[in-house]
Amino acid sequence: MSDTLTHIDAEGRTRMVDVGAKSKTRRLAIAGGEVRLSAETMRQLSSAALPKGDALATAKIAGILAAKRTADLIPLCHPLPLAFADVRFSVDEAACIVRIEAEASTTAETGVEMEALTAASVAALTIYDMCKAVQKDIVIGEIRLLYKSGGKSGTYVAPEWPEGRPFPDA
Amino acid sequence: MSDTLTHIDAEGRTRMVDVGAKSKTRRLAIAGGEVRLSAETMRQLSSAALPKGDALATAKIAGILAAKRTADLIPLCHPLPLAFADVRFSVDEAACIVRIEAEASTTAETGVEMEALTAASVAALTIYDMCKAVQKDIVIGEIRLLYKSGGKSGTYVAPEWPEGRPFPDA
Amino acid sequence: MSDTLTHIDAEGRTRMVDVGAKSKTRRLAIAGGEVRLSAETMRQLSSAALPKGDALATAKIAGILAAKRTADLIPLCHPLPLAFADVRFSVDEAACIVRIEAEASTTAETGVEMEALTAASVAALTIYDMCKAVQKDIVIGEIRLLYKSGGKSGTYVAPEWPEGRPFPDA
Amino acid sequence: MSDTLTHIDAEGRTRMVDVGAKSKTRRLAIAGGEVRLSAETMRQLSSAALPKGDALATAKIAGILAAKRTADLIPLCHPLPLAFADVRFSVDEAACIVRIEAEASTTAETGVEMEALTAASVAALTIYDMCKAVQKDIVIGEIRLLYKSGGKSGTYVAPEWPEGRPFPDA
Amino acid sequence: MSDTLTHIDAEGRTRMVDVGAKSKTRRLAIAGGEVRLSAETMRQLSSAALPKGDALATAKIAGILAAKRTADLIPLCHPLPLAFADVRFSVDEAACIVRIEAEASTTAETGVEMEALTAASVAALTIYDMCKAVQKDIVIGEIRLLYKSGGKSGTYVAPEWPEGRPFPDA
Amino acid sequence: MSDTLTHIDAEGRTRMVDVGAKSKTRRLAIAGGEVRLSAETMRQLSSAALPKGDALATAKIAGILAAKRTADLIPLCHPLPLAFADVRFSVDEAACIVRIEAEASTTAETGVEMEALTAASVAALTIYDMCKAVQKDIVIGEIRLLYKSGGKSGTYVAPEWPEGRPFPDA
Repeated sequence: MSDTLTHIDAEGRTRMVDVGAKSKTRRLAIAGGEVRLSAETMRQLSSAALPKGDALATAKIAGILAAKRTADLIPLCHPLPLAFADVRFSVDEAACIVRIEAEASTTAETGVEMEALTAASVAALTIYDMCKAVQKDIVIGEIRLLYKSGGKSGTYVAPEWPEGRPFPDA
Repeated sequence: MSDTLTHIDAEGRTRMVDVGAKSKTRRLAIAGGEVRLSAETMRQLSSAALPKGDALATAKIAGILAAKRTADLIPLCHPLPLAFADVRFSVDEAACIVRIEAEASTTAETGVEMEALTAASVAALTIYDMCKAVQKDIVIGEIRLLYKSGGKSGTYVAPEWPEGRPFPDA
Repeated sequence: MSDTLTHIDAEGRTRMVDVGAKSKTRRLAIAGGEVRLSAETMRQLSSAALPKGDALATAKIAGILAAKRTADLIPLCHPLPLAFADVRFSVDEAACIVRIEAEASTTAETGVEMEALTAASVAALTIYDMCKAVQKDIVIGEIRLLYKSGGKSGTYVAPEWPEGRPFPDA
Repeated sequence: MSDTLTHIDAEGRTRMVDVGAKSKTRRLAIAGGEVRLSAETMRQLSSAALPKGDALATAKIAGILAAKRTADLIPLCHPLPLAFADVRFSVDEAACIVRIEAEASTTAETGVEMEALTAASVAALTIYDMCKAVQKDIVIGEIRLLYKSGGKSGTYVAPEWPEGRPFPDA
Repeated sequence: MSDTLTHIDAEGRTRMVDVGAKSKTRRLAIAGGEVRLSAETMRQLSSAALPKGDALATAKIAGILAAKRTADLIPLCHPLPLAFADVRFSVDEAACIVRIEAEASTTAETGVEMEALTAASVAALTIYDMCKAVQKDIVIGEIRLLYKSGGKSGTYVAPEWPEGRPFPDA
Repeated sequence: MSDTLTHIDAEGRTRMVDVGAKSKTRRLAIAGGEVRLSAETMRQLSSAALPKGDALATAKIAGILAAKRTADLIPLCHPLPLAFADVRFSVDEAACIVRIEAEASTTAETGVEMEALTAASVAALTIYDMCKAVQKDIVIGEIRLLYKSGGKSGTYVAPEWPEGRPFPDA
């Protein structure tokens, strides 16, 4: 290489972490998120009356597929052969909120937080898409890590993790 | 087809909207979102000290690429040849929030809200990924539509749109 | 170019059709297919007892997504902005057959047969995947074009098209 | 999670199998399929006279690429680093049938049937695409598993496996 | 948006060109490239003796597929429905060079240079991959635009365009 | 399979190498490439005055993403979970050349040359795209392997490797 390095390498130093020297351990992550709906949209979702059909079944599939495509979407993520990916929903009709929980796990040199977070985000976007003919001011929020285990940094349990709920890999 | 239709078609009726009869009009959408950081993460992001490098430059590229892949991620979205996609950031150092604004536009039979929302979401996930070695409780939130024009349903301006800010296609 | 042309261009002449001079017309295609199951697999599918869950809801989403990715899978297919894609099922419990019908339409310079056929094939593969823990000798068959309209070659109606069934774009 | 679980998780239970606790073993699968042509199409295919060129060479590449993209197409499939993927053809000119055989293998926690079946299906679709200017009533059929080894369920040999043909991993 | 704009938007200004106001015109581009082989590799390629098989047939398909995926690979490229993509080769056995020519065309608001260049590059990489068991010091070079027509900037003819060769869209 | 094998399998024998029997070893590859610019384009690139923004930051991200998508682009490449991918640049302002170096590594049954070469190629194409409004005769060249270690064939050091430069995995 010639003498003049660009600012990218001199300063920015955007770079993927090299996980080549890390050991493979069991990794699991659960991410949460929510979609805030109006009362009318919630009514249509709950009564299977949305014009585009079953929002949650569609969002589940979209979220699982997105988990598998995480490294294709997030530039510095490592490609990982996932052992498991799942997206679950709970519908809080009173609060007009669809709560999303996405889980990913594998045995690898690096964690699967981004896979769980990407699954939750794409599931949320899919619910948005299925409802947007009915409501324009839907909000997606609280996309965050709820639980993570495996790897050098160990287990992380978010403050939002319900007291008494067993850990998924206990 | 035989006589017995499955419940999917009888009840669920999950289906893409047929846009074949709609006319092509200019469509534009702006979506917003935010990433909430700790003071320490914000300090590292602002002083270009994050271990993985320039979070915002990376997130911008990831968001634009994601806008172009929206129909591949969201099952019932129509594929669209985008005329423009952009992701912008403003960093509120005091509040420790990175605000994201994503814009998409085209001339098509259907709107580009999902493209703008997907770009904002993937940009947010990328910022998360670039910061997650420093902080575990980052939150992505307030992914929502800020502005939309074109099509039969006309212009939508979110309550969050700043008073006095000119409309992008005015 | 130098003088020696390879056999590829001299003989094989594998090449995409240039549709640049064709005019855009409304195009619609319906493809059919079937998945042949054992009585036990059919029982589990019909009673929602399959270990992996709802085969048809999952296959429908997979088929629609595949329709949008046809040009990415079939080398000489043209990329097309689909106006509509759908996958429908009818379950013939007596014959132990899931019949698949996939539809695609757009306004373009070229037809959408491959989009409909790809959707039907991937929907069939997804049903296979959802059932394969129960049965090893599932057969996918009769993937074929049922109906096609638009373009220079005009309307095609397969012998399998039920007498009296109205044409989708009549 | 709140109290009200949606029907998806209560009933549908669509979910990926968690292969995290399975051990890695050598896995191999061979899938078959066929494309039924008219005498005229078979003549053009055999004499390299098809307008789009060499159908089998193109279908082979398309099938191998599709094998690698299986987890991207089939929602509940696990991503796998394939050690080998191949697509082979035999042309039965008298019967006007192109027979397809696709093979996939790897060392993993889960089998590669879907990879072999997806390769066979996309190879068949590609042959269809290369021939469809000549014939509208092409039929793809008999997509099925011919052989499978590895994993807890052990070896499966389909009735169609020719007597006396050696097993690929014997 | 808050007051503090990041350096990305203040300085870097990485952004996609907005082609929304451009008119659709017929666009065509031809790109060239070459792969420099040793005498032994050239001998094996020419005599169909390469261990991985037919390098040029495989490279042609890979290049055409890559043309269709250009906007997925090049961040600021616009997605375009290509009307035509082709990759051609000429083998200069004396000079041990495979010359590549890739062509792309469409009717759109923006040009197709990147599609032609991407097709040429991926075709070259595929030839490299097919030959690399035989030779380690293969070089890919001279990837450049040879011809371009359509759009506001008009026709461009590279100095390398052979004198007397007719223009493709004349 | 029936009796008549096609020429593809009889002659062409295009096929992926079966790496199932190879052992996993640490693999690393570095590829080089260059983009030749005019003085004016080099001036705009160096002074951050290009109309599309920061060419090198964008090219770095595009190259890393492309490394992860290599098996999707190059038909006979094996999918690999990369442990590391990076793209670096050095700008030779006097010679008007941007030199690219791309690195990939993993522990696998097969090498990562194609990953490094694909990253370098797509980074070069991205620089081209960012500069093409300014200059039509940009040339991408000298895409080649600079260094490779691991696997049965052992270490390869290209003649272009600078004397005295330490090996990356020494």
